[in-house]
Amino acid sequence: MKHNPQNRQTIYTGRVLNLHLDNDYWEIIEHKPAVAILATQDQKMLLVRQYRAPLQAYTLEIPAGLIEPGEDILEAAAREFAEECMLGGDLSLLTSFYVSPGFCDELVHLIRAENLRPAYGIPDDDEEISLEFLSPKELLEGAKNGSLKVSAPAISAAYLLLSEGL
Amino acid sequence: MKHNPQNRQTIYTGRVLNLHLDNDYWEIIEHKPAVAILATQDQKMLLVRQYRAPLQAYTLEIPAGLIEPGEDILEAAAREFAEECMLGGDLSLLTSFYVSPGFCDELVHLIRAENLRPAYGIPDDDEEISLEFLSPKELLEGAKNGSLKVSAPAISAAYLLLSEGL
Repeated sequence: MKHNPQNRQTIYTGRVLNLHLDNDYWEIIEHKPAVAILATQDQKMLLVRQYRAPLQAYTLEIPAGLIEPGEDILEAAAREFAEECMLGGDLSLLTSFYVSPGFCDELVHLIRAENLRPAYGIPDDDEEISLEFLSPKELLEGAKNGSLKVSAPAISAAYLLLSEGL
Repeated sequence: MKHNPQNRQTIYTGRVLNLHLDNDYWEIIEHKPAVAILATQDQKMLLVRQYRAPLQAYTLEIPAGLIEPGEDILEAAAREFAEECMLGGDLSLLTSFYVSPGFCDELVHLIRAENLRPAYGIPDDDEEISLEFLSPKELLEGAKNGSLKVSAPAISAAYLLLSEGL
């Protein structure tokens, strides 16, 4: 069967995602793109701990959030970094990836923040976030043994830091 | 507002995902866990190129697939690696991560395959896959400049290989 996006049934249109069924077969989630920010302090990764409803559990992630309409990538990163961590810095794009392209179009841009400095942001109402600092090895080991629930961008960031000798 | 999974409305129950709305607010995708396999040949990453309906485009990913009910992680990895690449190997768990825990519970286990050897698998009907080989740097650069559409596990795998000096 060949995918034909003209043969699309929209099942749900929502706040952060839409669900379509193409050809009565492909279940497709439309989702805004996101940014995730890699920052370090004293050789450790800056991580955010927060409750995530889909897991009914707390995760460890690097700071991240959705790009709003009209924002460019680095603007979104600066806003999210300020909202979640009250921090700013010199921001640059590291790379970009699709979180799970078999069912979802979400694209994440991995951003590096250097020369950190205080910045003012207003936290989202629906987020309660605390900061933690772990070495890349601690994060990867916790994710492997199941003691930590870790996001995809945080794992990429951890391996990147290992590649820089951290 | 506090998340209460008892206050759940199921919007859609499907083939690879279910959609719930909790507290009339949180849009939650339930999705099976997956495996993704890192293998190298001649200093290059083994990648699969395939059409992905959500992007209406071809992606470059490391071999990956869903864990079927009753399968353990390494069994699923062996099956997917055989189905997609007609290859087997010595398999071990590297780490695990949630692809996008803000809306989805999908967990991906990143698996290393070493000492590659031929293996017989029956490709999925709905997948047309070709193999490609790129260095980690080529993959990361293509993902950054937008010339390649790359999956999250492939990006983690690329940084991991850089950390090993590849």
